[in-house]
Amino acid sequence: MNIIIINGPNLNLLGKREPSIYGNQSFEDYLEILQKTYSEINISYYQSNVEGELINTIQEVGFISDGIVLNAGAYTHTSIAIADAISAIKCPVIEVHISNTHKREAFRHHSFLSSVCMGVILGFGTDSYRLAIEALIQAKKRTEE
Amino acid sequence: MNIIIINGPNLNLLGKREPSIYGNQSFEDYLEILQKTYSEINISYYQSNVEGELINTIQEVGFISDGIVLNAGAYTHTSIAIADAISAIKCPVIEVHISNTHKREAFRHHSFLSSVCMGVILGFGTDSYRLAIEALIQAKKRTEE
Amino acid sequence: MNIIIINGPNLNLLGKREPSIYGNQSFEDYLEILQKTYSEINISYYQSNVEGELINTIQEVGFISDGIVLNAGAYTHTSIAIADAISAIKCPVIEVHISNTHKREAFRHHSFLSSVCMGVILGFGTDSYRLAIEALIQAKKRTEE
Amino acid sequence: MNIIIINGPNLNLLGKREPSIYGNQSFEDYLEILQKTYSEINISYYQSNVEGELINTIQEVGFISDGIVLNAGAYTHTSIAIADAISAIKCPVIEVHISNTHKREAFRHHSFLSSVCMGVILGFGTDSYRLAIEALIQAKKRTEE
Amino acid sequence: MNIIIINGPNLNLLGKREPSIYGNQSFEDYLEILQKTYSEINISYYQSNVEGELINTIQEVGFISDGIVLNAGAYTHTSIAIADAISAIKCPVIEVHISNTHKREAFRHHSFLSSVCMGVILGFGTDSYRLAIEALIQAKKRTEE
Amino acid sequence: MNIIIINGPNLNLLGKREPSIYGNQSFEDYLEILQKTYSEINISYYQSNVEGELINTIQEVGFISDGIVLNAGAYTHTSIAIADAISAIKCPVIEVHISNTHKREAFRHHSFLSSVCMGVILGFGTDSYRLAIEALIQAKKRTEE
Amino acid sequence: MNIIIINGPNLNLLGKREPSIYGNQSFEDYLEILQKTYSEINISYYQSNVEGELINTIQEVGFISDGIVLNAGAYTHTSIAIADAISAIKCPVIEVHISNTHKREAFRHHSFLSSVCMGVILGFGTDSYRLAIEALIQAKKRTEE
Amino acid sequence: MNIIIINGPNLNLLGKREPSIYGNQSFEDYLEILQKTYSEINISYYQSNVEGELINTIQEVGFISDGIVLNAGAYTHTSIAIADAISAIKCPVIEVHISNTHKREAFRHHSFLSSVCMGVILGFGTDSYRLAIEALIQAKKRTEE
Amino acid sequence: MNIIIINGPNLNLLGKREPSIYGNQSFEDYLEILQKTYSEINISYYQSNVEGELINTIQEVGFISDGIVLNAGAYTHTSIAIADAISAIKCPVIEVHISNTHKREAFRHHSFLSSVCMGVILGFGTDSYRLAIEALIQAKKRTEE
Amino acid sequence: MNIIIINGPNLNLLGKREPSIYGNQSFEDYLEILQKTYSEINISYYQSNVEGELINTIQEVGFISDGIVLNAGAYTHTSIAIADAISAIKCPVIEVHISNTHKREAFRHHSFLSSVCMGVILGFGTDSYRLAIEALIQAKKRTEE
Amino acid sequence: MNIIIINGPNLNLLGKREPSIYGNQSFEDYLEILQKTYSEINISYYQSNVEGELINTIQEVGFISDGIVLNAGAYTHTSIAIADAISAIKCPVIEVHISNTHKREAFRHHSFLSSVCMGVILGFGTDSYRLAIEALIQAKKRTEE
Amino acid sequence: MNIIIINGPNLNLLGKREPSIYGNQSFEDYLEILQKTYSEINISYYQSNVEGELINTIQEVGFISDGIVLNAGAYTHTSIAIADAISAIKCPVIEVHISNTHKREAFRHHSFLSSVCMGVILGFGTDSYRLAIEALIQAKKRTEE
Repeated sequence: MNIIIINGPNLNLLGKREPSIYGNQSFEDYLEILQKTYSEINISYYQSNVEGELINTIQEVGFISDGIVLNAGAYTHTSIAIADAISAIKCPVIEVHISNTHKREAFRHHSFLSSVCMGVILGFGTDSYRLAIEALIQAKKRTEE
Repeated sequence: MNIIIINGPNLNLLGKREPSIYGNQSFEDYLEILQKTYSEINISYYQSNVEGELINTIQEVGFISDGIVLNAGAYTHTSIAIADAISAIKCPVIEVHISNTHKREAFRHHSFLSSVCMGVILGFGTDSYRLAIEALIQAKKRTEE
Repeated sequence: MNIIIINGPNLNLLGKREPSIYGNQSFEDYLEILQKTYSEINISYYQSNVEGELINTIQEVGFISDGIVLNAGAYTHTSIAIADAISAIKCPVIEVHISNTHKREAFRHHSFLSSVCMGVILGFGTDSYRLAIEALIQAKKRTEE
Repeated sequence: MNIIIINGPNLNLLGKREPSIYGNQSFEDYLEILQKTYSEINISYYQSNVEGELINTIQEVGFISDGIVLNAGAYTHTSIAIADAISAIKCPVIEVHISNTHKREAFRHHSFLSSVCMGVILGFGTDSYRLAIEALIQAKKRTEE
Repeated sequence: MNIIIINGPNLNLLGKREPSIYGNQSFEDYLEILQKTYSEINISYYQSNVEGELINTIQEVGFISDGIVLNAGAYTHTSIAIADAISAIKCPVIEVHISNTHKREAFRHHSFLSSVCMGVILGFGTDSYRLAIEALIQAKKRTEE
Repeated sequence: MNIIIINGPNLNLLGKREPSIYGNQSFEDYLEILQKTYSEINISYYQSNVEGELINTIQEVGFISDGIVLNAGAYTHTSIAIADAISAIKCPVIEVHISNTHKREAFRHHSFLSSVCMGVILGFGTDSYRLAIEALIQAKKRTEE
Repeated sequence: MNIIIINGPNLNLLGKREPSIYGNQSFEDYLEILQKTYSEINISYYQSNVEGELINTIQEVGFISDGIVLNAGAYTHTSIAIADAISAIKCPVIEVHISNTHKREAFRHHSFLSSVCMGVILGFGTDSYRLAIEALIQAKKRTEE
Repeated sequence: MNIIIINGPNLNLLGKREPSIYGNQSFEDYLEILQKTYSEINISYYQSNVEGELINTIQEVGFISDGIVLNAGAYTHTSIAIADAISAIKCPVIEVHISNTHKREAFRHHSFLSSVCMGVILGFGTDSYRLAIEALIQAKKRTEE
Repeated sequence: MNIIIINGPNLNLLGKREPSIYGNQSFEDYLEILQKTYSEINISYYQSNVEGELINTIQEVGFISDGIVLNAGAYTHTSIAIADAISAIKCPVIEVHISNTHKREAFRHHSFLSSVCMGVILGFGTDSYRLAIEALIQAKKRTEE
Repeated sequence: MNIIIINGPNLNLLGKREPSIYGNQSFEDYLEILQKTYSEINISYYQSNVEGELINTIQEVGFISDGIVLNAGAYTHTSIAIADAISAIKCPVIEVHISNTHKREAFRHHSFLSSVCMGVILGFGTDSYRLAIEALIQAKKRTEE
Repeated sequence: MNIIIINGPNLNLLGKREPSIYGNQSFEDYLEILQKTYSEINISYYQSNVEGELINTIQEVGFISDGIVLNAGAYTHTSIAIADAISAIKCPVIEVHISNTHKREAFRHHSFLSSVCMGVILGFGTDSYRLAIEALIQAKKRTEE
Repeated sequence: MNIIIINGPNLNLLGKREPSIYGNQSFEDYLEILQKTYSEINISYYQSNVEGELINTIQEVGFISDGIVLNAGAYTHTSIAIADAISAIKCPVIEVHISNTHKREAFRHHSFLSSVCMGVILGFGTDSYRLAIEALIQAKKRTEE
């Protein structure tokens, strides 16, 4: 089973900024643990700050992967183009967020992506990613039944 | 570890209506499987169509339970009173939905509960409940570390 | 043919308040006349001020009755939960109002129920109920043709 | 008793278009049945696609008729001028619609006419017209008591 | 000097309805007095309930008249087409209203015509028409200076 | 003189939660002091988390009491049904709030109840209840003059 | 007959600024002509840039004058306090504007004053003031009839 | 192949007003050229300022023509009735505008017709009509393939 | 204890206008009674129709008084500047209104002052002022405990 | 004559996804046909999923090309930056869309580009591109006359 | 070169309130330093809490000064009258704010003044004033070139 | 002291387009003068039309520079992602604009960046950049005090 985690703008700074809040763990460190936990799954990773490059990647993996875990960061709230890319591909996409976006500014309460994703998981810190992988595994099981 | 699942209005009809879509499985049947899967956890269950009774239950369990998995159904979009109950209690609450509410009518896109819950999981069918339990277990681990 | 009339909040006060305007006739008195006029039909009646109890009743009768005449009072404008209950059941529901709600405050102009009911009848005083029964009889005829 | 049914724009196409959905019955055919059913009442009929001609007719019959059954079609949602004509005349006007307008596009949910009509009946197919006649008969009885 | 008064929908009922409020004077009676007062001016008159016929008349007189006094009635609030006709012609147009539209329903507070008219006069009963004629006379004087 | 204090959802938790902020005083303790201060008045008390039960109580006491002091909690902002109950009864109702709702979330700034109550008192902690009783006493004096 | 013209903020600059557009005529010059034209009427004048001073003046003259011609300038769009002063006094007030405010910025399209004034005259340059005086004379005639 | 061009309100003034901007060419002159260019197609023409007459014509030709090129002028932004007529007929309709409506007032940015037309062409002067005919020819080819 | 009552625009007319509604009592008369009732407190009084003078007074007394009872009249709904003055000073301010502003026009439902005041009391006639003084006394007691 | 077609995000997937709906033709295949049909014109092509690269290309060709046919995909609805690029260049730009965007989600009804483009063509499938080229040819002819 | 700094409501309290935040420096103290720094410029100063007095001052200095540095405080967000005064005068006006108004309440994000000022400088503490003076000096240089 | 100026989309065209308005000076030419004026400061420069590349640059310099002067062009109004990048870094950022954005289209009045920047300077042509550098120098001084 092939799953890809795609992170959007500013998520490359995780672990590098405000360590007292977010801890010293970079996303790469967290990814390593995740890959060990789910060793039977091939979990790859991509990050970009460029909206169009995220679209490029979604298009490329969307026909060959078993699922995408997508944290589009701020593009979640502004990008119809990413939503269109999700609609165009074949594999399921799960929208995740580290923070509970509904506790933040009003402009973060709306997502252009939610309605074209399979489901949404938000507010659990980096554990949101793991839960998304759990969801993809279970969804695959159900399809195969 | 004590977890309670609380279901709001019309969720008692699950499995009884539109079996071609939702299947023949009632929530009680699903619950049984869930309880077996997480046999080390005490998972109890409450359902009501009455907003105030949901508040009563949240108040009662909110100081003695380790977590609430809450699918408030349509009250999600209209009840500030339930949100206030969640704010008043001590244990974490996770908002779940069976369907992806963002694919449905516009009035289902806003939740009064999201901003006072720990996190949100939606769109994974009944698997949303299991993922919420996973999240509560992980959150407890992190707290105990 | 079994029809149930369901009245929502404050409609139990009919005939008891402002008799100079509404007359001395309680809904029970009116119901008696209605039952005599349509003696071939079994017309039952339920009233509650509790939103959840209205949902309970709609769920119970919605699979065994031939039609519901529903005046949800103020819940018409605030209850998505009642609308969901109507969507979930099998028998047709007709929304009625005694007064012409469009002559009143702006917040009474929107109904969460109209789009899930078969039709709407409003503004004819208690005669709105009789017209709804007429509509249910005719609808049944058409289905049986 | 003199009642006039007034139909607005595009209702002249009834029965001519989409027969698989609307059937082959034109409004004229339906009218004939209605006139037979209520043989003691003089039911006349007018249709126009021109807003101003509808106003002309409402003004003409509004002082000499016992009631108007008005399906103003799309002008329901855009015409303050028709609403003003209804306000200016003496006889009661009932707003009817064949379809349940609340199940359709958002711009059909608001009516400029409802607040100046006696009442509203919508969603019962052509039976909406018959119910309106029933309502006018009953309203006349009550006035004469 | 040639001036035309154009009245829109339902203004033909003036004097015929609600005489206790509006008096028994029809617009034709008032017009006669106005024509006597301003005997040196040729004041003609047109009324229609049909939006398109009002446009026809505005187009016809708009290139040969010295001014139009326009009370477009309810079309004031809904007709961009009449506004376009006013923009297309050469002579000045003054918007008048008998009642103070700002004391009435919110949808009467906006006029599509005001921004393309020379000026607006409202709230003075039928005297609004006389004031508009005064304004046209004065405007002509100023132009000729 | 008979006055009833009615408290809505979550106000039963007063004194039990966040004692560092709200103190250790439950509403029952405060009530006792209040009753002693106004020993010449019969002050009764009712609390419920169920919207419909609040309506039941308002209907019951509304024709026999001299005044209601109502803190409807979160239902203040969502319940047209409670507003309708207030409109239907005979005795004056005063809306009170412990906190200054205008310092809190935007959805707490609007009250469906204010326009049907005699007056509003908010922001004075539990002293808001005492001030409401003062207002009822004074209002009764004025009526009796 | 006593009439007062009250001008609001920045209208004291008339004739002093942009003479190519507004001409060299100050309001004082125009007033002199007006006073000569209506020599049988006592026309006084007040101008202030201070909202509260305008209210003071409206209160003072409002019980002893036969009418106020008010150009409140920019306060037209922002001052509920001036509207309240107009509501409190006895003599009729006419709202005037030199320019056609509906041709200008959107925030000039709404007036807090229109609904409490007798009528509105706008867009005729300084002739708007003369037309308002004409309207007051005619209104007085009608009252005396 | 039969195509009809239908023009709405004020388009009869083309070539007659503001020749420095729009040129001296009336629509009839332009039509003649168009008919010569597409001599193998029967291009007829209708214009009216009356909304209802436009509907009459759309209904008449809509079942016998191969396509309608519709410039509804200002009715584009206000007429649901014309949109309903388009939905009811069989032949394709193309919405055209001479000017780029998006460069003009905000109320011209919304069209009630676009969503029920085959496509939209706007901003190319009278060439918009020719492009629409090109589109209809091509659409017919594709259908016949 | 020093308390100042500050009244805003048009409140100087109290008792002078509409005596059948408001009675013949001016605010000065009412104040005298109030001062007698609370003879142990030094109650001073200020009124102005000028927004800036109200600010001047709030600034002056705000550092030396024990509390302000403020009825800002219409400025309640438009003045951010008064709200800023309240935020800047040290003593508590209570917002009062004679009428129940929520029963009046929509633009009176919002107050810029509420969120910066200690609390709000409205709808009790002039008794609102007395209740505010009661509230200030009680608040002082609590602070001194 | 040099024309460039610029396609925005996700349009590279044309022909590759949902062949039952969109057919098997990629845009490159369609382009080839187009180039043959207009062999006298030099038609080049650019596609990117990156907003900024679209701006780069528009800037580069905008001073040397005779016209741009732009289908900006989802960026149509979100990109002010592309609109600014269009405003800055010299050659005409035509906005095209394959689908009729007005039949789709509400957020696709607004275009930031329309008001800065020469014109808009939408809803004709890939034929929209050909019509745009026709429009550019005609526009050039007119300029050269 | 003559420059005037005009401060609006509550800015006279600077240095007197909340010294831990704003410091002990009054605006007069800061002004002295500023005047020393720019000794070649005549910097005068005016402050008022009264909107109309600010207008008076703007009108007086606006034709004789070389520039105005205006911090209108809360009137920034509510005063069209001050904006009109700025439009009427000849010298350039720069809008300044001590705090970053965009970090504060939503009602402080809109300024009626920005669109009629030369430019805006906000968020730099009292240094905003110095930067404005720098801007005026540079603007004068450019004009003189 | 290290300062970087970052320019967003279309600002690379400065000096190349509309020289009659913007002059012949490119931003590079202006930069050279600026660098000479502030020779003691190291002023570097970056421009891109790609949103994500602007984010990349902000992230890179944001931890090592003493300040960023950012003109994000059209992304100012649409990019939450750039705002997030600004929030994540350590050095102060000043938002600048060459034109006064408040004199332009309504969609340019809102900035996603203002609330996360230190301050805003707009409307002074290229001098806005110099003023921002002045502000950074002064801010640094204050911090070092």
